[in-house]
Amino acid sequence: MATERLLAIGGEECRVVVGRRALLRLAPLLREAAGAERWAIIADSRVAALHGEAMLARLREGGLAAALFRFPAGEEHKTRESWARLTDELIAAGIGRDAAVLALGGGVTTDLAGFVAATYLRGVPLALVPTSLLAMIDASVGGKCGVDVPAGKNLVGAFHQPRLVLADPEFLRTLSEADLRDGLAEAVKHAAIADAEHFAWLGTQAPRLLAREPDAIDTLLDHSIAIKAETVLADPHERGQRAILNFGHTIGHALERLSGYAVSHGKAVAIGMSVEAALGAAAGVTDPDAPAAIARLLTGLGLPTRLPPGTDAGALLEAAAGDKKRRNGTLRYALLARIGAAAPSADGAWTHAIPEALARRVLAETTFRASPARP
Amino acid sequence: MATERLLAIGGEECRVVVGRRALLRLAPLLREAAGAERWAIIADSRVAALHGEAMLARLREGGLAAALFRFPAGEEHKTRESWARLTDELIAAGIGRDAAVLALGGGVTTDLAGFVAATYLRGVPLALVPTSLLAMIDASVGGKCGVDVPAGKNLVGAFHQPRLVLADPEFLRTLSEADLRDGLAEAVKHAAIADAEHFAWLGTQAPRLLAREPDAIDTLLDHSIAIKAETVLADPHERGQRAILNFGHTIGHALERLSGYAVSHGKAVAIGMSVEAALGAAAGVTDPDAPAAIARLLTGLGLPTRLPPGTDAGALLEAAAGDKKRRNGTLRYALLARIGAAAPSADGAWTHAIPEALARRVLAETTFRASPARP
Repeated sequence: MATERLLAIGGEECRVVVGRRALLRLAPLLREAAGAERWAIIADSRVAALHGEAMLARLREGGLAAALFRFPAGEEHKTRESWARLTDELIAAGIGRDAAVLALGGGVTTDLAGFVAATYLRGVPLALVPTSLLAMIDASVGGKCGVDVPAGKNLVGAFHQPRLVLADPEFLRTLSEADLRDGLAEAVKHAAIADAEHFAWLGTQAPRLLAREPDAIDTLLDHSIAIKAETVLADPHERGQRAILNFGHTIGHALERLSGYAVSHGKAVAIGMSVEAALGAAAGVTDPDAPAAIARLLTGLGLPTRLPPGTDAGALLEAAAGDKKRRNGTLRYALLARIGAAAPSADGAWTHAIPEALARRVLAETTFRASPARP
Repeated sequence: MATERLLAIGGEECRVVVGRRALLRLAPLLREAAGAERWAIIADSRVAALHGEAMLARLREGGLAAALFRFPAGEEHKTRESWARLTDELIAAGIGRDAAVLALGGGVTTDLAGFVAATYLRGVPLALVPTSLLAMIDASVGGKCGVDVPAGKNLVGAFHQPRLVLADPEFLRTLSEADLRDGLAEAVKHAAIADAEHFAWLGTQAPRLLAREPDAIDTLLDHSIAIKAETVLADPHERGQRAILNFGHTIGHALERLSGYAVSHGKAVAIGMSVEAALGAAAGVTDPDAPAAIARLLTGLGLPTRLPPGTDAGALLEAAAGDKKRRNGTLRYALLARIGAAAPSADGAWTHAIPEALARRVLAETTFRASPARP
């Protein structure tokens, strides 16, 4: 069932193995990916409790030495402090340059453990075994890693390509409904920026996807990871085109931050895509039919499309301006041209400056109201 | 007078400009190196007081926007905490992805500011203007950056190639005598591992070098930087041959740490080279004449060659074992074959395992005693 891709990203080789039963091949794949003597498995407290012992046993049965390192579950722990603590624990455990890091978990874990691997002794090999849909299709390919700081998400980090990404839908059986939907939001993003046909397919598969039907999930994983991989290969260091993966994320990240991370990443991105599709349409960059198509698909997948009632547009834009996507202080957005295609910009940056007045108007229109005039 | 090299290290271009009056060309060189809108100058409190305003003025006169960020001087501030604080200050100042970092200072600053640049928004361009001899010849070329942690030096960091390295001996006029000698220790190391002729030349130039005679300093800078650059180019990610730059550093780092950094890096490396030359000779790896030649040259340059009285060999080896050069828990050293050549190892690692019993014996022999039987 599993499909395999060998990506050469920025001079580094990354093997991506996706699909049912991939997990059975983990130990030999790890051995092939890095000639490491020991594997430091990093997982959050929740995933460690669910899968930690089984993973240790799997590696040891496969003839690999392994130890498990935990950090408290939750985006609020994707911090420099968690990174420093894990680093110190690896040092104390005698993990040397001949070791490698295996990140086991969702996007918080792949980001945090990836940053540990990127900076530990100036970098040790990394393998990712994502356990959430979001991490499988979004966080696992591309080499981005990092942590949040008080001023914003992912403002500190690195590019550190994993040697191996292994995405087995087996892990999705223990995923919460909310986490499944979070992943579906990123799948919608991938389709929206790059594949109109896949976007249409998602629209027909909502009930099967929400029921986690294996065939539907396998198809989704394969398409989404292919889109992510193609985009990353075109621009490994995010100097231009890769910015299109930020569609929905300028507003999305700001909303997450403004809510103190009470709004999940997927929900925030879903709302962010709706808002940014409307922004693009209002600015004449995006096909005027796109916002409704996005909203329909998201609603069908049980995802929100409007900013929470009472959202302060000024505070949201200020939070977005603190984000790293600003250039020269002007707020810029990755926007769609139409469903299935991102909009290039004249300067090659693939982002578009939107005047604040226009943004405020659109934010007001896309905020949920007690008695809304919904489209 | 200035010589220029354009190095392509791991796919990144790094321009290295060395010599008198190079500083006059800084602004145009920075503009060429990175199309940055703003430069964040990072300097320690001491260098900021000496050169900060002049550097700001130089950049602004050259048409570049610049701001100065300070951290407290001293190796004890090359920490994750300083890195986090500087990062937060850059964010608060609105430094975006269109900015770049200029590290102005010694090795502590190039390491720390380099790590800020490597991880800020997942990496922004970096230029280095080293102000100490040690930083000019050692810290500036190669892309290594990082911070110290309680368990040891440089255990956290990254490889982030600078776009520009500009080494102007003008800065050496304000250098302390002790800092000058620290740099000379690394110059001895470069000669010892790669250039017997330069090693002999250093022996004849000690008085002129200690008097900072411009011609002698220029020649030293040019040779040392050439050796460093060649070694780095041969192995940009320190997977093999680059390990020879660690000659003197396994014991050197351990001694620094054991002393609570009371022993300076250069002095520690001078002692480390003497000890590791003796270790290599005792293990049959190093020409038996090398230890005396090393000791003679170091002594002529006013550098120490013996471990401080009362050094606890066990504690020193334990501190060294905490260092990142261990493999499989065995302590390994980069050793000389003879003056002017490092010793390769069968496994391509360019490091050599030395049994602890042998190391203890040599450590005892190279420890300073009240009534020493000096060679």
